[in-house]
Amino acid sequence: MYRTHTCGELNLSAAGKKVVLSGWVQRSRDLGGMTFIDLRDRYGITQLAFNTDTNKALCDEARKLGREFVIQAEGVVAERHSKNNKIPTGEIEIVVDKITVLNPAETPPFTIENETDGGDELRMKYRYLDIRRNPVRDNLILRHKMAQETRKYLSQQQFLEVETPVLIKSTPEGARDFIVPSRMNAGQFYALPQSPQTFKQLLMVAGIDRYFQIVKCFRDEDLRADRQPEFTQIDCEMAFIEQEDILNTFEGLIKHLFRSVLEVEFEGPFPRMTYDEAMGRYGNDKPDIRFGMRIRDLTGIAKGKDFKVFDSAEYIGGINANGCSEYTRKQLDELTEFVTRPQVGAKGLVWVKFNTDGTLKSTIDKFYTEDELKKWGEKFNAKPGDLILILAGGKLPTLKALGELRLEMGSRLNLRNKNTFAPLWVIDFPLLEWDEEAKRFFAMHHPFTSPKPEDFSKLDTTPGDVRANAYDMVINGVEVGGGSIRIHDQKLQKKMFQTLGFTDEEAEAQFGFLMNAFRFGAPPHGGIAFGFDRLTSLFAGLDSIRDVIAFPKNNSGRDIMIDSPAPVAQAALDELSLNVVKKG
Amino acid sequence: MYRTHTCGELNLSAAGKKVVLSGWVQRSRDLGGMTFIDLRDRYGITQLAFNTDTNKALCDEARKLGREFVIQAEGVVAERHSKNNKIPTGEIEIVVDKITVLNPAETPPFTIENETDGGDELRMKYRYLDIRRNPVRDNLILRHKMAQETRKYLSQQQFLEVETPVLIKSTPEGARDFIVPSRMNAGQFYALPQSPQTFKQLLMVAGIDRYFQIVKCFRDEDLRADRQPEFTQIDCEMAFIEQEDILNTFEGLIKHLFRSVLEVEFEGPFPRMTYDEAMGRYGNDKPDIRFGMRIRDLTGIAKGKDFKVFDSAEYIGGINANGCSEYTRKQLDELTEFVTRPQVGAKGLVWVKFNTDGTLKSTIDKFYTEDELKKWGEKFNAKPGDLILILAGGKLPTLKALGELRLEMGSRLNLRNKNTFAPLWVIDFPLLEWDEEAKRFFAMHHPFTSPKPEDFSKLDTTPGDVRANAYDMVINGVEVGGGSIRIHDQKLQKKMFQTLGFTDEEAEAQFGFLMNAFRFGAPPHGGIAFGFDRLTSLFAGLDSIRDVIAFPKNNSGRDIMIDSPAPVAQAALDELSLNVVKKG
Repeated sequence: MYRTHTCGELNLSAAGKKVVLSGWVQRSRDLGGMTFIDLRDRYGITQLAFNTDTNKALCDEARKLGREFVIQAEGVVAERHSKNNKIPTGEIEIVVDKITVLNPAETPPFTIENETDGGDELRMKYRYLDIRRNPVRDNLILRHKMAQETRKYLSQQQFLEVETPVLIKSTPEGARDFIVPSRMNAGQFYALPQSPQTFKQLLMVAGIDRYFQIVKCFRDEDLRADRQPEFTQIDCEMAFIEQEDILNTFEGLIKHLFRSVLEVEFEGPFPRMTYDEAMGRYGNDKPDIRFGMRIRDLTGIAKGKDFKVFDSAEYIGGINANGCSEYTRKQLDELTEFVTRPQVGAKGLVWVKFNTDGTLKSTIDKFYTEDELKKWGEKFNAKPGDLILILAGGKLPTLKALGELRLEMGSRLNLRNKNTFAPLWVIDFPLLEWDEEAKRFFAMHHPFTSPKPEDFSKLDTTPGDVRANAYDMVINGVEVGGGSIRIHDQKLQKKMFQTLGFTDEEAEAQFGFLMNAFRFGAPPHGGIAFGFDRLTSLFAGLDSIRDVIAFPKNNSGRDIMIDSPAPVAQAALDELSLNVVKKG
Repeated sequence: MYRTHTCGELNLSAAGKKVVLSGWVQRSRDLGGMTFIDLRDRYGITQLAFNTDTNKALCDEARKLGREFVIQAEGVVAERHSKNNKIPTGEIEIVVDKITVLNPAETPPFTIENETDGGDELRMKYRYLDIRRNPVRDNLILRHKMAQETRKYLSQQQFLEVETPVLIKSTPEGARDFIVPSRMNAGQFYALPQSPQTFKQLLMVAGIDRYFQIVKCFRDEDLRADRQPEFTQIDCEMAFIEQEDILNTFEGLIKHLFRSVLEVEFEGPFPRMTYDEAMGRYGNDKPDIRFGMRIRDLTGIAKGKDFKVFDSAEYIGGINANGCSEYTRKQLDELTEFVTRPQVGAKGLVWVKFNTDGTLKSTIDKFYTEDELKKWGEKFNAKPGDLILILAGGKLPTLKALGELRLEMGSRLNLRNKNTFAPLWVIDFPLLEWDEEAKRFFAMHHPFTSPKPEDFSKLDTTPGDVRANAYDMVINGVEVGGGSIRIHDQKLQKKMFQTLGFTDEEAEAQFGFLMNAFRFGAPPHGGIAFGFDRLTSLFAGLDSIRDVIAFPKNNSGRDIMIDSPAPVAQAALDELSLNVVKKG
């Protein structure tokens, strides 16, 4: 038996008990006649004590143990002289009478401490050592809890977890698939799923009624920061439901997770906001509502005063940065630089300072009287000490730029506390997006998303105005989940394909398989998928999903720990009837 | 709202209640003035009643509904005249006042009944319809329960479920990997994991201590009957444990599953049998111990009577087929044919009948006296009415052939009841297997499997005799799980590689990565993996794993429902720097 207890469980109630512990040497300290070793395992740290007076040989042995040695220690639990109330085992130590080295260790390439000296790359290469650090291990424990609580909640709600295949078929639309050559079917390929969308809809046709799966999905995209080629979804679908049922069921899931994992309670239902509201008020379809600072529309009152920038703008709007009237020239220049970055794309920044002494100062004093500017201030409920920041231009880009500026100001003003959680539903998304290049509409969600019944008629006249029964769950400005009610009516589906510019043949070629299944009695259904990595990192208060993945890949899709991907033997390729084409 | 209740929950206590149900039309019956429709959903069947006298129009409408139409019905719960006590809703029916067709259905290609008229191929093609059938749906519900209960038990035992990557690195040994071309790293490939073996051992090095995962694994093998290219494992690993801890922990898991899913209780611990015992008594390392019929060794007493077949045999053994002395010539010929099939490989069958009248009859009367044969009978505790079946030859092949014959006789005598479960551990497997072709030893489990400490010394002298700390869990003759204690000592690991004939360079090339991690303090550890598909099919009383997989592939690795694998566009291959080589 390697241990009677873990390193996280002993306290004064065990004093006098003979115990055996096993773990890693976290650190050792020699204090005159005593040597202390912090022994670490997954559950905590326990202090081992060695006295040179009572057992010199053992003490000498202990002094030879290096960091990260794996040892077993036998001894008696004793009250500590100097207690450490920061850890559960801080009142006791083990007076050791025997140690066994289970495995020595070379000096690790970085320190196994909460704050390590190892850089990102090095910690990725030795990820198995990085996981020994408390914060990384705690992230994995959090992820485990979230997965188990998700399953518990959904199982109680009669959802069945059904495994869908990983080796599926490549589809031409959407992001790029990873493909898997078939040896037994030369020249043919499986594809790895970007999501189990088709299969979950088939499970509804199959009468499974309520399905979920915590499932790996794959996307061969050029990786932007914080994307992974393999990622995990909480994938769900329900039949015989309306949008309201989905929102209630999954609001319940998220509340359950907050309650059971973080002990956070939410009063009342989550706010719901239409896409139009979200864009108009926050310049963002995933608004961070931990803070207000709503966008106000100045288009009506700011035009017609010969300020050309505004007069020629489709939209003029701004936000009120409370208490920022003392911003310096330098700070304001930084903000101007921020909004004119290509990613934000504004032409320039107009500001109005409502100084604490009651005076006003702005970049546009030439064009507007103080009274006029005060009127603007009313729109923002501006008080002395406030700073109004204004952008103008095309409506959508200006709103988006204001949204970015709002987030930036929220960060500068520390209004985006990671321990505060502000969830909401964004609903009534547009069904279609016009693609200027392709000169046609694309489905904003996917071609099976149902339009809102009251907007059916607009499909013929103004398709761009049709709203969808689609919804996103947003927390702290992060889209953690999204889904839609699906079309189950074949006529409506046909209409939808026509609107998207598909010929019958194209629709058949791309979606015929699912349409075929729908001929045999498809129930009304809809679903949602949550980004499990993203949700977990949000719960952990982290910005990156990488930190909640045990063995992540880097931004080039490489696992630098195992050095993958890698070339394979030509013999293996021959079996697959494949050749690598050398680039000339 | 599509429904107030499911089709499985209404009973007399709801009589008089106004309800709304939704589901599929299972069947409809016209009885004079009445029409009855069985409405089906995942939860059950409820009878809908339509009376032509009270509402002719509605009754006519109901008569038009085809099989598998998706409908919504509103009405009042009423007591039935002729009750059906076979189903929970059998005492009531819904007197319908409104029906809505949610979706019509074409006639399905096979009947959606417990016993369907659809063949295997057709049901695979329309799997989404097959899943509507109760037995298939029930298998998926069983699988869901087993997965949730597995997670519940292991979580309570402090195991953490950690997701390991699906895009990993190809390794040269073992079965063939599926590989995945990397677009961003031209000419390089990921591989899909055959098991998370390396990663779970790394998690032990990482201090995770107790890991599990219900995880998809992949093997590009030529598919024998009932193999799938993708399959699911309950994969587990523990640190600071000995074999005994693993056996106890996972015996606990299996008992928990039997208790919570099937309400089957086992008294006391599961039997344990060494590999040698299993081979000697049952001719099989995964013995079906639902019945006895143990193999008895006759080598000592049957030789030396001038019967050349026996005299030249390394081993002579047999089984007692209780009560089969009346077997006809035809039946005995069938058995002879059975044992001489190439898969079984015996040269011939010797039998001795202990007739009910006390006389004896055998194929070898010429060589043995009745007294001698009676002495054999004592070995088998043979009684009048019994039939002794004897094979002879090389020891291992003869034992294996006897094992096959024993299973055959068990089936013929109905001793292999699917509702009886006989689990056991098979332990002390040989560490190494001699490969006659390669003229070297191979690891029976894998090269990290630890030899039994008491056998260390034999590694130098008689490696073939070294036993491993390896174990299988066997239920009803099916190996449902297996694992081993791993080597964590680097010197022993080196010795092991030498024994397997690896040079240091080869060992480094193939296993260097894990060995490298072991340099930084690897704890003693070991694990097990259960075949989740197999375990579920066993619980379901099924022979095939295909029936417990929602969307299985056929024996050529094809998903005939989605018609995959399939060719991909050359443009996609170009992006991957790949060409398909046309076979000339």
